[in-house]
Amino acid sequence: MANDHAFLRACRREPVPYTPVWLMRQAGRYMAEYRAVRERFGFLELCHNPEAAAEVTVTAVDRLGVDAAIIFADILLLLEPLGVGLEFTKGDGPVIHRPVRTPEDVARLSAYDTADALSFMYEAVRLTRRALAGRVPLIGFSGAPFTLASYLIEGGGSRHYVHTKALMYRHPDAWDDLLSLLAQLVNAYLKNQVAAGAEAVQLFDSWVGCLSPADYRRYVLPHTRAAIAGLAPETPVIHFGTETVGLLSAIRETGASVIGVDWRIDLDDAWSRIGHDTAIQGNLDPVVLFAPPAEIRRRVKDILDRAAGRPGHIFNLGHGVLPQTPVDHACALVDTVHELSRR
Amino acid sequence: MANDHAFLRACRREPVPYTPVWLMRQAGRYMAEYRAVRERFGFLELCHNPEAAAEVTVTAVDRLGVDAAIIFADILLLLEPLGVGLEFTKGDGPVIHRPVRTPEDVARLSAYDTADALSFMYEAVRLTRRALAGRVPLIGFSGAPFTLASYLIEGGGSRHYVHTKALMYRHPDAWDDLLSLLAQLVNAYLKNQVAAGAEAVQLFDSWVGCLSPADYRRYVLPHTRAAIAGLAPETPVIHFGTETVGLLSAIRETGASVIGVDWRIDLDDAWSRIGHDTAIQGNLDPVVLFAPPAEIRRRVKDILDRAAGRPGHIFNLGHGVLPQTPVDHACALVDTVHELSRR
Repeated sequence: MANDHAFLRACRREPVPYTPVWLMRQAGRYMAEYRAVRERFGFLELCHNPEAAAEVTVTAVDRLGVDAAIIFADILLLLEPLGVGLEFTKGDGPVIHRPVRTPEDVARLSAYDTADALSFMYEAVRLTRRALAGRVPLIGFSGAPFTLASYLIEGGGSRHYVHTKALMYRHPDAWDDLLSLLAQLVNAYLKNQVAAGAEAVQLFDSWVGCLSPADYRRYVLPHTRAAIAGLAPETPVIHFGTETVGLLSAIRETGASVIGVDWRIDLDDAWSRIGHDTAIQGNLDPVVLFAPPAEIRRRVKDILDRAAGRPGHIFNLGHGVLPQTPVDHACALVDTVHELSRR
Repeated sequence: MANDHAFLRACRREPVPYTPVWLMRQAGRYMAEYRAVRERFGFLELCHNPEAAAEVTVTAVDRLGVDAAIIFADILLLLEPLGVGLEFTKGDGPVIHRPVRTPEDVARLSAYDTADALSFMYEAVRLTRRALAGRVPLIGFSGAPFTLASYLIEGGGSRHYVHTKALMYRHPDAWDDLLSLLAQLVNAYLKNQVAAGAEAVQLFDSWVGCLSPADYRRYVLPHTRAAIAGLAPETPVIHFGTETVGLLSAIRETGASVIGVDWRIDLDDAWSRIGHDTAIQGNLDPVVLFAPPAEIRRRVKDILDRAAGRPGHIFNLGHGVLPQTPVDHACALVDTVHELSRR
């Protein structure tokens, strides 16, 4: 039954009655219901509270009519038990108070039991599955080893990733140690989410597009592969990144079953670079949701035309919903995708 | 004589004895000589002072041994006479105190005489040509209409370009008016620089990579084409952008004779997307200059191998030299390009 959902069918490149659609950060600040919950909880507090996380997850699905839920959490939660001082500051986003910049810093980190330390996450997955009652599938997720490492090393967001790349280039062994540790944690974390009920998982390598193809292949690809190795073949794995046009053929080698692309390339061009034997997710510019509805409709049609009814397209934005996005435009997007793609 | 320089020959895709190399922002904060001059002048003050700008330009060439000089200036100088309150703040970069966000704001702007208002720039070009005495060619430049507009509209740098794209999508006529005005100013400014002695020009569309290919073609390409129209055919026009992998075939249609690419794609892949009948500039990640010299050498070799000795490659970074870059690594880069490419 559950396996018949359009989202899961599309991930497996099976024919679907309409193109499934969901939105990254669909439960977020642009939505009044979410802001109301956030008045009761800080951001990390909300992530740590399974009941509230489940509520926020399900509310977004109900409000938008999307074809998949994604568990409310953050890509960096995995870093918290490492004891590096993860904090979410108002406005400036995540901060790591004790960044990892030298081989000595890397050596001080050690693996932990993800089953134990992140149990709140699996509980949230269980509660959400129950609340969704089979309406739509539930996606679990984590940051990918590279993106996790970039936050750990830079101490937060970054523009040029100088510290990250400097560690790569100057201390490749320490780099590999760090990425291996992160890959091992991500792998266990994702498997635990699947065991708790996640029906697909998404790996957010949000900032991997700062790398050259050669650096990606040498310093990232093997670790991403390790992070998703051994996930049950029936569980779709979505790889997400931005600015990845030059990396698509390498990303394909991660073993992910669905590859996300942002709006910086036409969908048909991206899909032929990836290969049509892999599913694709994307690729509307999130800022298009600030355009008038007629313009949104024109853009949706263009993307669907480029997908050409080929099996294996999941409609999504190329990055998360932005905070000022009009909610009715997000709803209109979902409806338009369904309407224009119905076969 | 001057036309025999490797840089100009490569721009015209003629055979060269070695691959010419220069570095974007080669005269910049990473260099002690530059920092010393900056103790005497504020940033805009330095741009406005032809003698000092010429000194800074020539010093960088002498220090690095590069194959081209680029006039010391800023991509936004063209915005100053529009009266929008351009300021360079320490640390945060350029700020526009009166951003242009509505059709009414656009209507209030009017063209001005670039010959008059930017005469300090042409004087700097003349002085620099004289000081270079034919050693290497001199490149003039400007921001491209889109990148200029993005600063005007956002009021400074931006992450998501929401205001910029919102104006595009909601008020396409006002958008076209604004871009036409900017294209007209850029065109006159570049022609005046050539008349003053610039032997090539570079158009910096630094942030154009935030656009989808469809948006680029509709909202930017015609204006970029207008910005470089009518430049003498013997004057190479270099188009620079970052994150442009998905846009390369469209950028080719601007009429630029050289297309810059960043490190997010392999050079051979980029060149086949652009077409081998156009010259290419790039494409080392600026952060590689933080790596040990042996690693820099390996990267240079990889790029040269991918260029495969094909005529029309100008070696450069994929973006400007970063402030903390070790100067001796930049010098080593230039020497290595010359050594490994000598035919």
